[in-house]
Amino acid sequence: MRNIAMLVSYEGTAYHGFQIQPERVTVQQRLVEAIFKLTGEKAHLHGSGRTDAGVHARGQVISFQTGSTIPTDRWPAAMNTELPSDISIVAAQEVPLAFHARKQARRKTYRYYIQNGRIPNVFLPYVFHYPRPLDVERMHAAAQLLTGEHDFTSFCSRKSDKASHIRTIYRADCVWKPSPFDLSGKSEQIEFSITGNGFLYNMVRIIVSTLIQVGDGRKSPEDLLFILQQRDRTLAGPTAPAKGLFLWEVQYDELHFDI
Amino acid sequence: MRNIAMLVSYEGTAYHGFQIQPERVTVQQRLVEAIFKLTGEKAHLHGSGRTDAGVHARGQVISFQTGSTIPTDRWPAAMNTELPSDISIVAAQEVPLAFHARKQARRKTYRYYIQNGRIPNVFLPYVFHYPRPLDVERMHAAAQLLTGEHDFTSFCSRKSDKASHIRTIYRADCVWKPSPFDLSGKSEQIEFSITGNGFLYNMVRIIVSTLIQVGDGRKSPEDLLFILQQRDRTLAGPTAPAKGLFLWEVQYDELHFDI
Repeated sequence: MRNIAMLVSYEGTAYHGFQIQPERVTVQQRLVEAIFKLTGEKAHLHGSGRTDAGVHARGQVISFQTGSTIPTDRWPAAMNTELPSDISIVAAQEVPLAFHARKQARRKTYRYYIQNGRIPNVFLPYVFHYPRPLDVERMHAAAQLLTGEHDFTSFCSRKSDKASHIRTIYRADCVWKPSPFDLSGKSEQIEFSITGNGFLYNMVRIIVSTLIQVGDGRKSPEDLLFILQQRDRTLAGPTAPAKGLFLWEVQYDELHFDI
Repeated sequence: MRNIAMLVSYEGTAYHGFQIQPERVTVQQRLVEAIFKLTGEKAHLHGSGRTDAGVHARGQVISFQTGSTIPTDRWPAAMNTELPSDISIVAAQEVPLAFHARKQARRKTYRYYIQNGRIPNVFLPYVFHYPRPLDVERMHAAAQLLTGEHDFTSFCSRKSDKASHIRTIYRADCVWKPSPFDLSGKSEQIEFSITGNGFLYNMVRIIVSTLIQVGDGRKSPEDLLFILQQRDRTLAGPTAPAKGLFLWEVQYDELHFDI
């Protein structure tokens, strides 16, 4: 047996998230089906983590063991012939048998895109359109209060089944990002990027909606700090829509894809 | 009566082009329906030109006369409440009664996007994915041969009903363009931008596919010049897919939208 890791992009709109569930179409299911078509094996496939329904991944990482003799560098093209057009294998690499895409993940980066302005941009399908003006510097200042090790219970779905809600955020940045189709004559897209050692259920989306409340003046950066300290989900904002969220990158100590 | 000009963006995937036709859903039809809902008037609406089925517009310009008293600056938001999410009014301006969006158009710019590389990028819906390597500098050099006044019969659908196929191209540029979701580690998107005093039926898409043949080595820049001189549609490439094409900008002598 060989252990294969792959870098996977998917456009999550059509899927009920990453993880296999009964009677729902998921990304993991499509990946397992493609491997079956190529090898006849029912692979036991690990992802670096789940993504929710409608969430996208630029750089999800998966691993699975196979007895197939397909050369590693042929796997991406072979898989892409079997996968639907909204899932793409970007790279593949053989890894030690002990490698596990979830257990060995060290750092994850998520990004969230907000289109800000009165007029919706029809060419930005992967954004949350928020029409009221947002103060991005104020949002960025508030995001800095989240860095470090904290209990993120206030920014976590009550459905979380994790024993500990303590996570470490290494960095969090909120910046204007030019849109390639911008007609407004000024920047209209905000990129929120957050890197940590792990993320709780809905955590990034709850942080984003709370930062939006800071950006439009409903809350102050100090309010954000208070919410964090209270460990009370009801104090933070709602869960921002899935369509603006990307699992951007997963980092490992010893895995680097050659692309 | 007042004459109103509007700047319109649309994502063309769902439409059988701009112009109204029987039993097909078109952008013009949706615009006329939205005006009817707001004013009760069946507007006689002009576009700067047609776009084909599946072609997008970043900056289409329309004009129509109305007896409505809706203030000009309220038109975009009012229209956007009545339009589907893939059509958006970006700006509106009152213009002299004699203004006509097609007849007064002086220069048009189209852009075409090619994603070049073996791995399809699932986040670039508005590109033609061409997997074989392309030499962009060679394509750019060939594109320069198209500038100036020429008879573009070789680069025009045989269905064209225009009396003259002579058009002037002011500039044509082929460049690498960074993709916001690039995972390949290198540029993977090519932008072709062309500005002229007018374009014939399928002209940009036929030019693009011929430039791709130059870029992958099947044709030389000199071949392109020969094809142009022969005025023979069979010598040029096929018609590139609609999904990568945008009507980018339309310029007028006396209309400038305030956005």
